[in-house]
Amino acid sequence: MWSYEKRLQFPIKIKQTNPQLAKVVISQYGGPDGELGASLRYLSQRMSMPYPEVKAVLTDIGTEELGHLEMVGTIVYQLTRNMTMEEIKKAGFDAYFVDHTAGVYPQAASGVPFSAEALAVKGDVIADLNEDLAAEQKARVVYDNILRFTDDPDVREPIKFLRQREIVHYQRFGEALRITLDHLNEKNFYAFNPSFDTPSAKR
Amino acid sequence: MWSYEKRLQFPIKIKQTNPQLAKVVISQYGGPDGELGASLRYLSQRMSMPYPEVKAVLTDIGTEELGHLEMVGTIVYQLTRNMTMEEIKKAGFDAYFVDHTAGVYPQAASGVPFSAEALAVKGDVIADLNEDLAAEQKARVVYDNILRFTDDPDVREPIKFLRQREIVHYQRFGEALRITLDHLNEKNFYAFNPSFDTPSAKR
Amino acid sequence: MWSYEKRLQFPIKIKQTNPQLAKVVISQYGGPDGELGASLRYLSQRMSMPYPEVKAVLTDIGTEELGHLEMVGTIVYQLTRNMTMEEIKKAGFDAYFVDHTAGVYPQAASGVPFSAEALAVKGDVIADLNEDLAAEQKARVVYDNILRFTDDPDVREPIKFLRQREIVHYQRFGEALRITLDHLNEKNFYAFNPSFDTPSAKR
Amino acid sequence: MWSYEKRLQFPIKIKQTNPQLAKVVISQYGGPDGELGASLRYLSQRMSMPYPEVKAVLTDIGTEELGHLEMVGTIVYQLTRNMTMEEIKKAGFDAYFVDHTAGVYPQAASGVPFSAEALAVKGDVIADLNEDLAAEQKARVVYDNILRFTDDPDVREPIKFLRQREIVHYQRFGEALRITLDHLNEKNFYAFNPSFDTPSAKR
Amino acid sequence: MWSYEKRLQFPIKIKQTNPQLAKVVISQYGGPDGELGASLRYLSQRMSMPYPEVKAVLTDIGTEELGHLEMVGTIVYQLTRNMTMEEIKKAGFDAYFVDHTAGVYPQAASGVPFSAEALAVKGDVIADLNEDLAAEQKARVVYDNILRFTDDPDVREPIKFLRQREIVHYQRFGEALRITLDHLNEKNFYAFNPSFDTPSAKR
Amino acid sequence: MWSYEKRLQFPIKIKQTNPQLAKVVISQYGGPDGELGASLRYLSQRMSMPYPEVKAVLTDIGTEELGHLEMVGTIVYQLTRNMTMEEIKKAGFDAYFVDHTAGVYPQAASGVPFSAEALAVKGDVIADLNEDLAAEQKARVVYDNILRFTDDPDVREPIKFLRQREIVHYQRFGEALRITLDHLNEKNFYAFNPSFDTPSAKR
Repeated sequence: MWSYEKRLQFPIKIKQTNPQLAKVVISQYGGPDGELGASLRYLSQRMSMPYPEVKAVLTDIGTEELGHLEMVGTIVYQLTRNMTMEEIKKAGFDAYFVDHTAGVYPQAASGVPFSAEALAVKGDVIADLNEDLAAEQKARVVYDNILRFTDDPDVREPIKFLRQREIVHYQRFGEALRITLDHLNEKNFYAFNPSFDTPSAKR
Repeated sequence: MWSYEKRLQFPIKIKQTNPQLAKVVISQYGGPDGELGASLRYLSQRMSMPYPEVKAVLTDIGTEELGHLEMVGTIVYQLTRNMTMEEIKKAGFDAYFVDHTAGVYPQAASGVPFSAEALAVKGDVIADLNEDLAAEQKARVVYDNILRFTDDPDVREPIKFLRQREIVHYQRFGEALRITLDHLNEKNFYAFNPSFDTPSAKR
Repeated sequence: MWSYEKRLQFPIKIKQTNPQLAKVVISQYGGPDGELGASLRYLSQRMSMPYPEVKAVLTDIGTEELGHLEMVGTIVYQLTRNMTMEEIKKAGFDAYFVDHTAGVYPQAASGVPFSAEALAVKGDVIADLNEDLAAEQKARVVYDNILRFTDDPDVREPIKFLRQREIVHYQRFGEALRITLDHLNEKNFYAFNPSFDTPSAKR
Repeated sequence: MWSYEKRLQFPIKIKQTNPQLAKVVISQYGGPDGELGASLRYLSQRMSMPYPEVKAVLTDIGTEELGHLEMVGTIVYQLTRNMTMEEIKKAGFDAYFVDHTAGVYPQAASGVPFSAEALAVKGDVIADLNEDLAAEQKARVVYDNILRFTDDPDVREPIKFLRQREIVHYQRFGEALRITLDHLNEKNFYAFNPSFDTPSAKR
Repeated sequence: MWSYEKRLQFPIKIKQTNPQLAKVVISQYGGPDGELGASLRYLSQRMSMPYPEVKAVLTDIGTEELGHLEMVGTIVYQLTRNMTMEEIKKAGFDAYFVDHTAGVYPQAASGVPFSAEALAVKGDVIADLNEDLAAEQKARVVYDNILRFTDDPDVREPIKFLRQREIVHYQRFGEALRITLDHLNEKNFYAFNPSFDTPSAKR
Repeated sequence: MWSYEKRLQFPIKIKQTNPQLAKVVISQYGGPDGELGASLRYLSQRMSMPYPEVKAVLTDIGTEELGHLEMVGTIVYQLTRNMTMEEIKKAGFDAYFVDHTAGVYPQAASGVPFSAEALAVKGDVIADLNEDLAAEQKARVVYDNILRFTDDPDVREPIKFLRQREIVHYQRFGEALRITLDHLNEKNFYAFNPSFDTPSAKR
């Protein structure tokens, strides 16, 4: 279970309203490679993870991504809270506004609501960790792209922090994969589903 | 931000493998009215919630639902961890197994992956709280139905605990709605979007 | 069964072409909280509704929403029928136009096609009526937001009519919930699924 | 606008509970080629239809399909209203039941909620009518397949009636296409978007 | 199986960067009536097609559409490869860019990822060929609309080539339908599922 | 462009009808980690791939996966072509049959139609190749699981061939990633989007 601590992992204080920027940042809230998908992927995969060290990595990072989700939502909120109807129309924020006003809804920049189709839980350590490595790289690209949209340091600093965390997570998942390969014997490297094929499994 | 505490909100120790039961329980993991949707709905709505008392309710319940998500995932995991291929085929668990093995994937009982289309964030206190009241009732029905599928006390006790929590949450959202109506003056009862139409808002 | 009467519930005569406005109005045609979803929700729920008075409310309102769907489609059509390619590009209507020309397609403002994932039929009177109360509030917010996008009285008058109807429906569903609570005895308030758990039901 | 008449287009009185059959029949309620999609397709296309005779066909058939939707929903309801938990499990109706109890929800047999992705409104008479011809053939196949699943005359008779109506609609859309081709001059047969390219259209 | 030949079916050399145009062209890559859907529809339907002549048509056209998919992807790529951040923002290409940079992703102009919900495989020759006739008309409309968005001959020439091919395919599917009707005897015209109801089928 | 060669990459001759097996095999046709997604992912990513050696790998593997898609479709077809209604009901193939008869439709075992939400094209070499490595591992798991469902050598041999190819592809993508890292200088390892940030790019 989780407990909430009333502070952000990195402080966010945005002075400049900018709905056009909010429109792209929201992809890290509910987009295919955003923080919600990341957290959900890791916290789901941990359920059947057989190696305690790897399970701990999934729990740690999955929990941290919840805090990142909160950070991204806060950025979207602060970029839009004082916008005028003129700004909304000019920014192309109208399609979002009509259905969500200034609320924060889990969707991609494209307007597509968050879907778990963008993440995989295969119940296989090798496949799940490769999925996680890919997820971190994809999230990193989105942060790269967000940074290209703005010069506002109030937004850039937390985004750069979040981007840096993805790189650290990529490295941690790489280590988890190495640990996993040590656990597995070579022969069943690719055919093994550890949560299913345990030696005692009834066939 | 959140921190993880290594215990379940309610203990789960399931002795009897039962993939047919897992097939329906998973709807409370990633189904339209499940715990993931609940948590995501409340933690998203809180971003733009103008009244601190109501925001606190959303934060509390949204955080608690994360723990419920963990509980439901644990039930699914324990019901399936030792299943045989024969049990899988007989239980109709084959469609799930081929893509997720014994992993826990956020989907409905129908097989549809979790989608945020099933939840709303309207950026309007009245609408959001009515959405929340409905969400708790819908989740309660799913728990009612799960209880009809099993006599196993190892599953029934945690499910009954979760069901009871939904009823408590329904009551808390009812109180939050009353608080909100006290905040609003009668005239703009229906037209008000508090996070947008503040007195100082530029129009 | 239904019969068609060749008139709108409220007259619509729009003189000013405005694809940018059409782009947001269409969310009440096929968006998550639009008239299609409303009508489909009520006309589906009525199938298993055990109380004749409540079933009649669902039939009435579900039928009226079909007429509202026609009204919203007519607004979208009249706002776009004479538009030029220049207006289309400038209004950001290009993504819609390339796939639907000036036809009326059931989608949200975001471009997401209508999906029944946004509505619930739980086969439980209490849950279904709470869903309906929430639906009316969510639709009301979208009409509020549409009104903020335009000063054109040709659009505002029918939208204000539609918005007013949602408030009336909210009140009627509130009454239906009160009637339902009178039908149910207190003990099974939360566990009851009336279309399933009738006294004579075989268990 | 529409008015409701309290009778079915064809009487339905099913004596034999059969959730396994309900599981496939529901595809004509909310499946990709079902009655909801049919009605929505025609009632949406009529909005921009330039020829009054063709618009009248769309209105007529779209309205009739609403009545067919009611018939299919009634069949599903009557097949499931008295089922026991044992019947539910044995029939594989469990995935549906856990989320919808004995309510009627617009989904395909596969469990996928209705989506407007399965229908097209192109704002072009030729394309829309070809879409409609295809839709009627696809619906006919589903009724053919439903008939293979049952010998119960209480279900077969209304299904045969509905199947026959699809064939009649196919013929009527064929005639509407002929009428349309007479309206169009040969030269712009394929390039024409009647609701957009009127002679007076500003380019 | 297929082999790749390193040339386009029609040459493409676009000199003028134009992300606003790319935004609508992409609907023929991954939109509901685009080349991916076309190819997938025909190559899937051919699997169960009982008449060799019709199967050959499906294979031919399905294979050709793969080459068209490559052409459309090439157009999107060439229209976006040298764009600046200023052009991206001004063109409304930002929502696409943040998640895909200058890559080519299979989605509609609306931003909705490609979904097979937009195509049907009914396992019935008559229905499948009507679906195919409709598909070609719908694709033709999208090419019509793309042509309205641009005067650039570098884009118009390949688009006009692609549009012309849809018309040819429409005619070929019309001939395939005629061949099919000759194969079927009149009596089972509508009830026939050739891949299932063969004379020797066990019932 | 592609040309079709009328033979399978590996011969398939299935003697034993088995719709229950077809139900899980189809996930490699249109499921989230199936051959359609694989082919589409690689053939889309190649569009913006800056390094010719890596682009060639994507083209080769993407083309080969088209042939694998044909193989999987052939397996599904041969497993279902002679089934009886009794076999359909007993196998739980009814939900598929009612909408697709014995046709081959691109969906997951769960019944969810193929969606491009399950694949990513990020326009970034590092992220795209990590995505591809993960994709091959995920596909491998599904083949592992299919092998657990059957002892029939007519199915096992082609599935084992397909599984083996995924492992080869995984290795080839690993090499492509090494080639890519050699191309990139260390400093911009993580921030680089090669198809966008070329030295000559206008900013």
